[in-house]
Amino acid sequence: MTDQKSESATQVRDSLIRAARICFIASDYDKVSIRKIAEEAGVNMAMIRYYFGNKLGLFEAMIAEFISPVLQRSKTINQGDNPLKMSDILDNFYQTMTETPDFPRFLFRLMSSEHSHEAKGVIFKLFTPLANLTPMPKPLLDKCSDTDPMLVKMSMMSLMIFPFVIPLSMAELHGFELDDDFYQRLAKHNIKLLEKGLFGEQD
Amino acid sequence: MTDQKSESATQVRDSLIRAARICFIASDYDKVSIRKIAEEAGVNMAMIRYYFGNKLGLFEAMIAEFISPVLQRSKTINQGDNPLKMSDILDNFYQTMTETPDFPRFLFRLMSSEHSHEAKGVIFKLFTPLANLTPMPKPLLDKCSDTDPMLVKMSMMSLMIFPFVIPLSMAELHGFELDDDFYQRLAKHNIKLLEKGLFGEQD
Repeated sequence: MTDQKSESATQVRDSLIRAARICFIASDYDKVSIRKIAEEAGVNMAMIRYYFGNKLGLFEAMIAEFISPVLQRSKTINQGDNPLKMSDILDNFYQTMTETPDFPRFLFRLMSSEHSHEAKGVIFKLFTPLANLTPMPKPLLDKCSDTDPMLVKMSMMSLMIFPFVIPLSMAELHGFELDDDFYQRLAKHNIKLLEKGLFGEQD
Repeated sequence: MTDQKSESATQVRDSLIRAARICFIASDYDKVSIRKIAEEAGVNMAMIRYYFGNKLGLFEAMIAEFISPVLQRSKTINQGDNPLKMSDILDNFYQTMTETPDFPRFLFRLMSSEHSHEAKGVIFKLFTPLANLTPMPKPLLDKCSDTDPMLVKMSMMSLMIFPFVIPLSMAELHGFELDDDFYQRLAKHNIKLLEKGLFGEQD
């Protein structure tokens, strides 16, 4: 099985990743059992041990599969020869977020939780390369009117992340309809806000 | 006792509100018992029934006491005769948040939770007047270059709320030091960003 990776082996692995995503989004990490994930995937529990070692290994593989394209895109943006624009960064981010709408709230909840230490360790490890790249590459930062990069970073992260993690009941209270159309218009609005606010003329 | 409200009666009520705040911030609403709150306050459980009826009544009183000054300040700002400035709104908000640093994360967690329906009902009821006022009063909104008030509202809420609810582990990952000094500098940065970004010259 290890030498000749059959199509069905890939299918088992994929279905476990998919089942893990469903289970970990629905419940706290500590409350998800490998038995539950195996049931959701419709495969034998032993397959989790075989492919991922244990629950943490499966969790790490699931997060890694989510992060991989985001990290890849961020690297491409950073290494691009053309001068970077704010819209490149925000469009990239909003695109990723709207493709996987449950994921940002899940990550935010996990990182806010006081439990699930081993899961947070994995998040920390996998997100470190991304945290070093995002949200703003140095050449762009150098053009900002505000010289403190941490303030620029916080305001960008606020505008990028908050709209995807706002509690649904808070969104309802304020009358937001969080559909694709809203996020597309918001991306344009925030790009303009940042371009004028950060790179506009100095006072 | 009802006619002659003694100093110690007020003390009992206050200590229960304070104990409730500690308990509800530490655990999910559903997991907090009135026995636990009474123990934390060092008073008899019967006092909770006497002053607040039940757990929900105490929860509502606690949230109301927190919201009251925020709402009062927001009303004053909205009714002021002088032309409103972005800095009035953000300074007011940041001041409130830094006075009660645990509260924003607590509210955010509660509103994100799928449980605690009765507690969320109270939040909804008490926050509705505030949601109608904030974050931007109409005269100020009319001056914005972007004409969609919901987009303006979302970007303001993002810049105002996110820095106070960012998970501590995410802050650590990105190298933020969330102390008073940081929030003061951030307030100034965000005021400038919004003023230039929203009220700056049109393209």
